[in-house]
Amino acid sequence: MFVILVYDFGQKRVGKALKICRKYLHWVQNSVFEGEISRANFVKLKKELEKLLDAEEDSIIIYTFRSQKYSKREIMGREKGNVDFMI
Amino acid sequence: MFVILVYDFGQKRVGKALKICRKYLHWVQNSVFEGEISRANFVKLKKELEKLLDAEEDSIIIYTFRSQKYSKREIMGREKGNVDFMI
Repeated sequence: MFVILVYDFGQKRVGKALKICRKYLHWVQNSVFEGEISRANFVKLKKELEKLLDAEEDSIIIYTFRSQKYSKREIMGREKGNVDFMI
Repeated sequence: MFVILVYDFGQKRVGKALKICRKYLHWVQNSVFEGEISRANFVKLKKELEKLLDAEEDSIIIYTFRSQKYSKREIMGREKGNVDFMI
């Protein structure tokens, strides 16, 4: 399956959230990730994020696509944020 | 066409960006919008955002889908952010 994941984490947790998401998906920009993922890994990813998540403050949206991915992705403005988190 | 739009605007411009995007798309969460949009309106939307955009600071990602939309959208955590912008 193909997923697009967008998160909004509080400053204290965003570094950990980035690390978790990058284990499973490609980091597209700032708070956006995408990629092909197995159902097993998808479950793992969600469990890890759930542990970290502060339900009052943080939010995550995950779009799931059965097979076909998007037909086009356009980026306007800055290419990638939070470079300080890059390894 | 169906689009998913994610933005990351600086504090000074985010209110205006929200207003522009809500004219054309449904506000899903915080910085995420989606919806069916005509090609003509899509061009208008991008032009309006381009005028507002600070290319050094802000960023927008737009996923375009020819016909089929996502098969599932999951939300974890907080349901909708920036409520103070709501009219």
